[in-house]
Amino acid sequence: MQTTMMDVPLSLNHLLERAGQLFKRGEIVSRLPDKSLKRHSYGDFYRRTRSLASAFQRKQLQKGERVATLCWNHHAHLEAYFGIPAAGGVMHTLNLRLSPDEIGWIAADASDRFLIVDDVLLPLYEKFKHLHAFEEVFVVPFSGAPVPAGYTDYEALLASGDPDGFRYAPHDEHDPVAMCYTSGTTGRPKGVAYSHRSTVLHTLVASLADFWCLRGRDVVLPVTPMFHANSWGMPYGAVMMGAKLVFPGPHLHPDDLLDLMQQEPPTLALGVPTIWLSLIQTYEASLKPDSPNHGRWKLPQGMRSLVGGAAVPESLIRAFDRHGVWILQGWGMTETSPLATVSYTKSELVGASDDERYRRAAMAGVPAPLVDLRTRGDDGQDQPWDGTSVGEVQVRGPFITGGYFNVGSPEDKFTADGWLRTGDVASVDELGFVRISDRTKDLIKSGGEWISSVDLENALMAHPAVAEAAVIAIPDAKWGERPLACVAFKPGESAETEALNALLTDKGFAKWQLPERYETIDAVPRTSTGKFYKLKLREQFPQ
Amino acid sequence: MQTTMMDVPLSLNHLLERAGQLFKRGEIVSRLPDKSLKRHSYGDFYRRTRSLASAFQRKQLQKGERVATLCWNHHAHLEAYFGIPAAGGVMHTLNLRLSPDEIGWIAADASDRFLIVDDVLLPLYEKFKHLHAFEEVFVVPFSGAPVPAGYTDYEALLASGDPDGFRYAPHDEHDPVAMCYTSGTTGRPKGVAYSHRSTVLHTLVASLADFWCLRGRDVVLPVTPMFHANSWGMPYGAVMMGAKLVFPGPHLHPDDLLDLMQQEPPTLALGVPTIWLSLIQTYEASLKPDSPNHGRWKLPQGMRSLVGGAAVPESLIRAFDRHGVWILQGWGMTETSPLATVSYTKSELVGASDDERYRRAAMAGVPAPLVDLRTRGDDGQDQPWDGTSVGEVQVRGPFITGGYFNVGSPEDKFTADGWLRTGDVASVDELGFVRISDRTKDLIKSGGEWISSVDLENALMAHPAVAEAAVIAIPDAKWGERPLACVAFKPGESAETEALNALLTDKGFAKWQLPERYETIDAVPRTSTGKFYKLKLREQFPQ
Repeated sequence: MQTTMMDVPLSLNHLLERAGQLFKRGEIVSRLPDKSLKRHSYGDFYRRTRSLASAFQRKQLQKGERVATLCWNHHAHLEAYFGIPAAGGVMHTLNLRLSPDEIGWIAADASDRFLIVDDVLLPLYEKFKHLHAFEEVFVVPFSGAPVPAGYTDYEALLASGDPDGFRYAPHDEHDPVAMCYTSGTTGRPKGVAYSHRSTVLHTLVASLADFWCLRGRDVVLPVTPMFHANSWGMPYGAVMMGAKLVFPGPHLHPDDLLDLMQQEPPTLALGVPTIWLSLIQTYEASLKPDSPNHGRWKLPQGMRSLVGGAAVPESLIRAFDRHGVWILQGWGMTETSPLATVSYTKSELVGASDDERYRRAAMAGVPAPLVDLRTRGDDGQDQPWDGTSVGEVQVRGPFITGGYFNVGSPEDKFTADGWLRTGDVASVDELGFVRISDRTKDLIKSGGEWISSVDLENALMAHPAVAEAAVIAIPDAKWGERPLACVAFKPGESAETEALNALLTDKGFAKWQLPERYETIDAVPRTSTGKFYKLKLREQFPQ
Repeated sequence: MQTTMMDVPLSLNHLLERAGQLFKRGEIVSRLPDKSLKRHSYGDFYRRTRSLASAFQRKQLQKGERVATLCWNHHAHLEAYFGIPAAGGVMHTLNLRLSPDEIGWIAADASDRFLIVDDVLLPLYEKFKHLHAFEEVFVVPFSGAPVPAGYTDYEALLASGDPDGFRYAPHDEHDPVAMCYTSGTTGRPKGVAYSHRSTVLHTLVASLADFWCLRGRDVVLPVTPMFHANSWGMPYGAVMMGAKLVFPGPHLHPDDLLDLMQQEPPTLALGVPTIWLSLIQTYEASLKPDSPNHGRWKLPQGMRSLVGGAAVPESLIRAFDRHGVWILQGWGMTETSPLATVSYTKSELVGASDDERYRRAAMAGVPAPLVDLRTRGDDGQDQPWDGTSVGEVQVRGPFITGGYFNVGSPEDKFTADGWLRTGDVASVDELGFVRISDRTKDLIKSGGEWISSVDLENALMAHPAVAEAAVIAIPDAKWGERPLACVAFKPGESAETEALNALLTDKGFAKWQLPERYETIDAVPRTSTGKFYKLKLREQFPQ
């Protein structure tokens, strides 16, 4: 027998139409380069987005053609999120933190036909434009200044469209809507192409009550860049539920974010650990009576926060919790849309001790619905979920990539049975909490035993004088490899090796697991998306 | 270009495997006929369900074949929800409140191959078994008594399966998993067949924070029968998130439900207005010092409640709110999986007055994501969303049926462009709140103007002496039709016509909208699923 259910495709266009019908009065606030706030209603967003889609259709944008964006987080970027797919195109977010050469290489690899770029980012565009010829470049007049000659004003593009006469491009749910390149620390970046289907499914799953708990009455502050795994998919979720959006624009300094939180208090804010770490340090410093910022800020009451993109140290979670902000950690990658696991309060943890809650919150968390997850040992066997056995995390599901644009499905990234090899090494405990212990290539093998660099880093970052710490392997004649700890201290602070080793010993590290030596650094080098860039440290400290 | 996303089907089997991995310690409590509680863990559920699936495979159950259930809400019914589809079959819930002839007709129409039946329901089975020959009947030893000769013990069926060696039947996401017949008050019941895809999508949407807000740490009491639109899909949601389930079994008397709420306090309870109405009346009566039940019950603190399946009077919402229980109304039907709209606190209503909140809460609510909704006038035109223009509600989406089993897509149920005609008449306001004013066939046309029977009923039910009220049309020589109000008073109470008319006038009804006359009845006749059965009243009061 057959199902009697309608065969209606999952579609971003449905979410856009829905927002236009139901959430006309919803707000979208964008912080401009001069730090003033620009306000749009969802009604504006709906009409502008349909104008954009109509304008691209009039430019003969063909189904599946890529339109690149090089933008900060703001209303026009959101319009691109929905308007480009509505026209049948694929929105391709360019990562403005990459080197110009990399950006140009990526735009050429993706054969991007058009570009939408912020006026304040034109200097960056000028540096890579020789690497790829866009047919036309649309400039968002983000700063308010006139758009320079030779470019098309984004507002003029919108004005050339017809929001009322617009008709969505025919599509099925497997058609691509967005593309994002991985920030791989090794090898060339590779393109992941999300579909209507994968995006709608990811949005539904991530929005669930145990994860984002996204409601229409939420006020969402996405600090995570919209070019970084689509700001973890939050813009789609906000539009689905009609939540108010507060976009920080280019101002991601802790002072600026804290100021913005006073002006438009969020109920839900998301960002990477690096920024959250400086945010809480700045905030706590402001509480001291002699601080020049004393009394300037108050963290919004009842705010929730999502942090991910890199391991979240327990000390960071404890620091925010002291001020009433609970941090929900998610784990994933560009390849997983990105939310694959979330560390939420499972029913078994209701009533658990604070220490236990923090310990779990500092883990990657539990696989989300629709995500199959396994850990595979070197022998190719699934590891038991016992909290100690480690293996490579492999995942599978309808919002996980099965290959890369122009590349296919290389064997080092996909298993023979079609699972994504994440390159992360983890254990899973009996409650299903995944605990990432390392990247496959960052593990330290000392005397035949593995040492987790991430565990050492998290423990060191709990020291009050340590701003951040990264641990890498150095070659050792006797033991094969030994850990080297690179430590950045907070301004004006420091700690002796003995004190740091004593802390690690207190936390249960064995003598042979302690760092072979410590190096003081200014800051941990990072990739464009805020992950520790250990390759740079290994170059700096080859032994 | 193509998406790079994996093509992984949506599947109930994924939810089952997930629960077996992540929620082993979760609880499933079932109330037995003797009112004792039986407890299973999710770990038990997982193994028993795989045993059931394996046993059906060994019985050579073929893909798409129907296995009927005739059961109360309990653990074994949940096992059937997942185990039958896992074996490739379709779970077909028989509605035990129908007449034996109707049940037999439905089982024959569906060509059900097997039956799972509660031992306490065998007397009902005996009454319709001559109408359809099941190949084998499996009896759940729900009461604990030995299973009578001639039947197979459900536990023996499970014991014949192999939970470890079991392999899921190959399937794609469009394969059916469950079938439910409509309770249509006119015409023969018709079968709706849900798919893996529709069920997973409905589960994700309904579970969102603005709707069920379903969390793993919830304790869910589904009073809504599992044979009534799959208990609104809640069993699937609970398994997806790992929520504790408390099944009431056959005891749905208010005293029994209140007792159960003391033993296993739910955080989320769902039921139809009829039962909720008697629940709150029983509860409030018990608060009187001279009540024999004084001090016996306390409504669980912080409990949320979902009520639907029929219009929810504002007075019911106010009554529960007096005791700290907020009622979330949903609207839908067997054909819509069933959740199509939900009346939640939209951002525009944050800070609204109590009266405004109650007024909105008494509406059907806002269309859920993935549901397209329009109201069509008699002229075939979409009605404006102005809060006054009424039309037939028509819906479309991936968890809405496009036809009926064995019947196809008749013109009176589906539009030429493929939308479901719900037969409900409604207006939609500028915030997107749908307000059902009537069934198409229950509207009263008086002097060329429509009068809403539902509006009159809800207003009358706000009178302290009125237990329930139903309004029907009677023929009138001058006006065409006039409203007749059939009123059931609370025990020992009554009200004069003048008082009732004064109440209606207070609520803003015009003189010509007042009932032509009142009739006192014992109770409003109901369909098997608790809806007002006005056909019976029209037979009783032809003029």
